[in-house]
Formats: sequence, C-alpha cells, structure tokens
Amino acid sequence: MQTSVKIVIIGAGSAQFSAGIVRDLCVNKGLYGSRVVLMDIDERRLDFIEKLAIRMAQELKADLTFSKTTDRQQALKGADFVINTVQVKAHELEGHQWVELQRRLSEKHGYYRGARLHDYGQMAFHLEVARDVERICPEAWLIESANPVFEACTLMTRETKAKVIGLCHGHYVYREIAKVLGLDLKYVTAEMPGFNHWIWMTDFRYKGKDAYPLINEWIQTNAEEYWARDVKKFSDTQMSRAAIDQYKLYGLMPIGDTPRMVGWLYHSDLVAKKRWYGNLGGFDSEIGWQMYLDELNRKLSEIEQVALDESKLVSHTFKPEQSDEQIVPIINSLVNDVQGLYQVNIPNAGHILKGFPEDLVVECKAIINGSGVRGVGIPPLPERLITGAMIPRWHLAELKVNAMREQKYEYLLLYLLEDHRTKNLEQAESLLEEWLSDSHNDILAKMFKK
Amino acid sequence: MQTSVKIVIIGAGSAQFSAGIVRDLCVNKGLYGSRVVLMDIDERRLDFIEKLAIRMAQELKADLTFSKTTDRQQALKGADFVINTVQVKAHELEGHQWVELQRRLSEKHGYYRGARLHDYGQMAFHLEVARDVERICPEAWLIESANPVFEACTLMTRETKAKVIGLCHGHYVYREIAKVLGLDLKYVTAEMPGFNHWIWMTDFRYKGKDAYPLINEWIQTNAEEYWARDVKKFSDTQMSRAAIDQYKLYGLMPIGDTPRMVGWLYHSDLVAKKRWYGNLGGFDSEIGWQMYLDELNRKLSEIEQVALDESKLVSHTFKPEQSDEQIVPIINSLVNDVQGLYQVNIPNAGHILKGFPEDLVVECKAIINGSGVRGVGIPPLPERLITGAMIPRWHLAELKVNAMREQKYEYLLLYLLEDHRTKNLEQAESLLEEWLSDSHNDILAKMFKK
Repeated sequence: MQTSVKIVIIGAGSAQFSAGIVRDLCVNKGLYGSRVVLMDIDERRLDFIEKLAIRMAQELKADLTFSKTTDRQQALKGADFVINTVQVKAHELEGHQWVELQRRLSEKHGYYRGARLHDYGQMAFHLEVARDVERICPEAWLIESANPVFEACTLMTRETKAKVIGLCHGHYVYREIAKVLGLDLKYVTAEMPGFNHWIWMTDFRYKGKDAYPLINEWIQTNAEEYWARDVKKFSDTQMSRAAIDQYKLYGLMPIGDTPRMVGWLYHSDLVAKKRWYGNLGGFDSEIGWQMYLDELNRKLSEIEQVALDESKLVSHTFKPEQSDEQIVPIINSLVNDVQGLYQVNIPNAGHILKGFPEDLVVECKAIINGSGVRGVGIPPLPERLITGAMIPRWHLAELKVNAMREQKYEYLLLYLLEDHRTKNLEQAESLLEEWLSDSHNDILAKMFKK
Repeated sequence: MQTSVKIVIIGAGSAQFSAGIVRDLCVNKGLYGSRVVLMDIDERRLDFIEKLAIRMAQELKADLTFSKTTDRQQALKGADFVINTVQVKAHELEGHQWVELQRRLSEKHGYYRGARLHDYGQMAFHLEVARDVERICPEAWLIESANPVFEACTLMTRETKAKVIGLCHGHYVYREIAKVLGLDLKYVTAEMPGFNHWIWMTDFRYKGKDAYPLINEWIQTNAEEYWARDVKKFSDTQMSRAAIDQYKLYGLMPIGDTPRMVGWLYHSDLVAKKRWYGNLGGFDSEIGWQMYLDELNRKLSEIEQVALDESKLVSHTFKPEQSDEQIVPIINSLVNDVQGLYQVNIPNAGHILKGFPEDLVVECKAIINGSGVRGVGIPPLPERLITGAMIPRWHLAELKVNAMREQKYEYLLLYLLEDHRTKNLEQAESLLEEWLSDSHNDILAKMFKK
C-alpha cells in the first residue's frame, strides 16, 4: 500500500533531526510517493539537508520527492503533516544563542542558569505556526517536537483548532534504569505518564513482575558507589542522586528529562548541581549544557560533511533502519490505518489524567490508527505525586500559557515570584525590565508592555 | 415557633466567642427551649462562661438552659449542632502559647514569623472532633469556626461524613473599603467568594452601579496619603499597599484576611511588612500580633469581670441584639426553615467554583433553610486570579490536607520546600527535626515519624 501525502518540516535546518526523519521515511514503504518539503530560513543549512535527503532516497531507492523553501506559508499549502522542531531565532541570533542571551540576562539578576524566559519566545513562534496551519492547511496534523512541548501544545490547542501531537524522546530513558540495574531490556516493560518533561514511572516490570523492589535494593546497595563514579555523559541523570531523592519524595521514579527539571533545591548553584547530579552537574549546568551545545555543533558539521561529500554513501552514516523516533510511524499509522501504541502529548479530553483540566496537554499512551489519536486513560497517580509535583508544575504551565493568551505583564511577574531565587519584587521587576528592553526581545516587549 | 435543639460549644472557654453566641441565642426566639452545652477542658473559664450565660438568659428572659462539661464525648451525645472554635493546647501550653512556641522554633531556622506549622496540630484535633461527631451524633451539623478553616473543613469532609459548615468573619471587611471610599454602606453590595482567608471581590456595587472605578480613582488620588497615615488598628490591612498591589497583580480586590495572607514578598521581614502594611507591619508582624494577643487577653479579663460581678447587668456589656456572627441565624434557618443567604465554607460539590475538585471546601454564598445548605455557583473567576492565586493556594492546602490523611513525613518536607524562605534541604529538615522532637508536638511526631 502506498499513500502519497505532503509532509512539511518547519525548521528543517535542524540537521540531525531532519536527517533522522528523512531516513525513517526512506525505510517506511507505506509512505512512498509522498512529497517532503524542507522549510527553514537558513538557506545554507537547507541546501545541505536537501542534498542529504535526495542522496539518501536515491541510495535506498525510496520513492520520495524532496523540495526546499524559505517561505513557510507557501510550504504549508496542501500539507497533510507539519513537523515543527524550531528553536526560534531573534534577529541575528541563532536559536541557541538567543537562549544564552536570555540566560545571561537572568543570571545578572540572580537567577543562576536562567529563569527559562526563552520559553516565551518559543511559545509565541509556535503559536504563530499553529495559526498558519489552522488557516492554510486546517486538516493537517501538526507534530510538535520543540520545547516547551507541555506549554506550547497546551497553548496551541487552546488557541487554535490545529490537530496537535506533541512528541519527545524522554520516555525512552526508563531503559537506562534497566541498564543500571543490569536487566535484560527485552523483558522490561514500563509506563510513564504525566506532563512532558514531568513524567513518572507508574509501572515497571521485569519478566512480568513488579521491578520497583529492584530499584529499592539498588538504592540500598549500589547507589552511593554509582553516584561517586566519574560521569561522562551530560545527559546521564536518570539514576542520579536527584532522581532517587525525587523518587523518595513523590513515591514514583521520575523519567527522562523529569529528574533534570524537578526541584529548585537541586539547582541552586554548581555545588548543589554536582552534589545531586555528579561531577558534570547534570545536563543543565554550565558544564553539561556546554557539552550538549558542543555535541550539537559537532554533529551538525558531521552531517554537513556527509551531505556534501559525494564520494561516500549517506546511508553509511545513517543506517537504513527505523529509529526510535515516533514521527514517521505515527504518520504511517494515521495514513495507512496501521494501528500503533505511542507516547504522545495531547489534550486531556475525557480526563485521561484525572484532576486536571480537559484543555491541558498531558503525556500519555495513545492508540493511533486511521481513525485518529485516542489517549489511553492514566491510572490514578498517587496523591503525594499529584500534590507534591503535578499541581505545582501545572501551575507554572498555566502562568506561562495564560501569559501568552492574555499578554499581560502581571503574568511574567507572577511567574518570577514563584521562582525560589526571587528575593523581592525589585529583583523580578528589574529582570523583566531589562529582558523586555533588550532589542532581541522586541516581539515579547510588544506583547507584554506594562 | 419554638424548636428545642441541643447545641454544643466545643472550646466554650473562648470567652468572647461564646459570649457572642449566647447573646445571639438569647435574642433569637426561634431557638428558645434549646439546651446549650458549654464544653472546655479549662474549668475556670468554663465556670465564668456558664455564669455569664445563665445570667444573660435570665436578664433577657430567654428560655434556654445551659450546662457545662469537660467531657467532650459526653457533651456530643444527642447534639443537633456542634460549634467548634478550639485553638488546641499542648500539654501545659495554652492554644496561643503553643502557636508561639512553634513560631519560635520556625524562626530559629530562618522562617521569620513562623511557617504555620501550628496548622497541623489544629487539623489533627479538629479531625478528631469530626470523627467523634460522625460516631456519636451523626445527624448533627458541625459548625467550624477555628483556623485553618479551609484546610480543616476540607480534611474533615474528606475523612468523615460529618456535615460541616465552616464560618469566618473575613468577608464583612469589604465594608472597610466602603468606609475608606466614603460610601454609605447601605447602598453598597459585594460578592467575595474563593477559599477561606483567600476571597476576592468579584462584584462591588454602589447604588447598583459598578464601584470598582471608585477604588481605581482612590488609588490614583488618595492611596499614598492613606498609606502614610499612622495605623492604629493591627487588623487594618484591607486598603493597605499590599492589598492594592494584589489587586493589580490578580485583577480583583482581596478581602478580609486575604491581603494579610497572600504574597510571600510582603512578609520577608519587618521592613517589608511596614512598607506594605504601614507602621504596625500588619496583623501578623511581631507588633500587630502582640496587639492582637493583648486585646484578646484584655477582653477575656473584661468578660470574666462582667461574668463574676453580679452588681451589674451582663446585658449592659453584651447589647441584646443579633451580632454579625452567622452561627445562630444559620441554626435558626436549618431548624425553623427560615430561609437565609449566608457566606459559608462547604465542599465544592457540583463545582460551585469551577476548575477545582468537588471535595475541596470553598467559600461561597449558600441558601440555607429547612432542607439544608445549598451553595450558590460562583461566576468564573478571572484566569489571572485562578492561575496566579487560586491554584498555588489550593496546592498548599492539598499538601497540608494530604499530610494529615496519609501521615507521611514527605508532605511536611514538600510543604516547607514550597516556602520561599527555604534555602536548601538541610534547613527544612533541621526545622522539621526540631519541631517533631519537641515534647509539645508528641502527637504530630507519632503521625509523621520518618
């Protein structure tokens, strides 16, 4: 079976991401005949991504056509699927540079490693894309892969009729637990619902039996030694002292990006970060984050090199097998009615997660097939987790989402007043004043003028 | 019409409170024939309260009988109404002394003016009473007048089948706004729903017209002068700089105890308190609170003197007219089917306040008559208020209520980690360790042993 659809990748210059999607498309015969439009405003990157895509399809004899454009609205015409992975830029600053600028502004005012103000620029852009989708290709599925997935998807689904699916890789990191415990992954099952980057392992089995006791045993016997080791990978936080502390506090293991995100007390300074996440201070320390940026850049160069070096096979670097990335299988499920079970971020319609609004986006399992996306109900979470972790996280999301919807300065202030590092009103207001008057933030200044 | 009921006042030694109830009963002929049981463990106070009650009834020719007891369970037998106003004591410490002990413990660990840990002891005791009511007099109405009304009523209604009505005077303080604005109170109407001590003026009219513009005008023209005045009354916070700042942040005026409670930034030290609440630093500063305690003691002595001095009429001090206190009118409405509209704290059944659980106690208007208590729906609150103020307050309530339900140490820790003054885990843990090992807190130590 072959069904021809139009797939648009917004921000296709994210080379590693796009190359992965292209490779997954090439190995999914069900989508052969489809047209893929690569859209970005960075022409240089767009050029080599297009080259890479065309060469990969040729090598793998994949019946796909690729085109590129810098015109988003043009790209969206007739789209069936829109994949958005943009880290938005501001004037001359690239996405990650803009993040760093905003982080530096925050640090000047006493917010070590920033106050996540860059989420506002992301939300503004992603809402704009959702509005374009709603207007230009209202039947398209909008697959959101950029952060903040939780807030951006909630905002987009509240403000537009776009059919949004938020995706993330974080849930796969339960495998790291299995690895550290020495379990054979093929006998491990796990469930980890919640909010994006705030998911909790509600079920964990090894050969069908509850495997939480194995974690408890590891904590008693092996954890201290593990925490004392020399951490090599910046992303290695799943079994950190912070993650285990959260497990003790809330009663369930945090998964993936969750142990990075939860708990101001683990992040107050580099000393705290090292204590809780090991010698690199975790993903989000000045050490870990720099390693992440360096790796991004290294991979980008590598991909550019591969794309432009016609003496080598592209498919040698990008092995022709389906990756972990759910995007292409989901498109295939929807287009060809191939039923699959996925981990997605969708509105809480029908109270998939009890106790939270139906128009809040939750991360859950979903059955996807030709009839669409149907969330699978989440068993009641423990009260301690709801009360201790879910409600406060929901609260921050509502502050951010409503800030964008109502465009009121007071929301920004309320958000910063929730931050443990805010000592008084002046501190929060002086950060906001400098942030809103920085020329790179002109779009936000217009929204939030006092 | 006269219907004889049995009314039990638990903590009747709260002399000012009991005297007010007795006076209101004396002037409500509909309840003549009723028996009033004064219960307290403080025999000296109980003695003079009983004397006062009997004398008042004689002077006003009220057909009521009074008795006293120190045995709570005995008192509850056959009760139709149970009024609980207890500030619970611990061993040799009186209620307010226990509060001060816990405050001092908190202050030693960096929590200026305490961390409201005394709420846990209150909740434990009030739940015990509700359990007694459920067992001994399951048909009785339990009228809860002691703090924390929000958390205690939520806890009691979740854990027992007792029919609880929480009451507070705070909502009347909208009158202070009228007074400061120079409005004739008889043309003023107002609505102020929310959670107890966290209520917001959703509607404010003068002669039928929206009177919020008059507040806005006052802020522009008179506020600074008003804030610069010499504050005489510790309770005078309704039009404080803090209250107006909250109005700006959330979009509605906070009422009564609300401007005292909201916003850590107004309370960081005495300098902040004076800046936001004027020269006394508000109700809860070391200055304001001492004035409150002094006034309590002064009134207690005064009442004792009146009660014991048989040369004077009791009814001279307690004017024989119905007070603002809603307790006796509510009893009359229930007993004699006299329909009335009251401001009560009841479970959010049927989502009186949208967006919050049905088993959370909310403060709202209610129609009360022979058929019972029916809450009046609250119009949707502004998003900024829900997001900025209601969700975080709900969060703290859930932490406290669930702490009592599950009796897990982790809840205490999570509660303190939400406190802006907590700098690190050690600070919170060392406070909890000292608090739980203080011999006055032995009941709580049993509940929350690690």
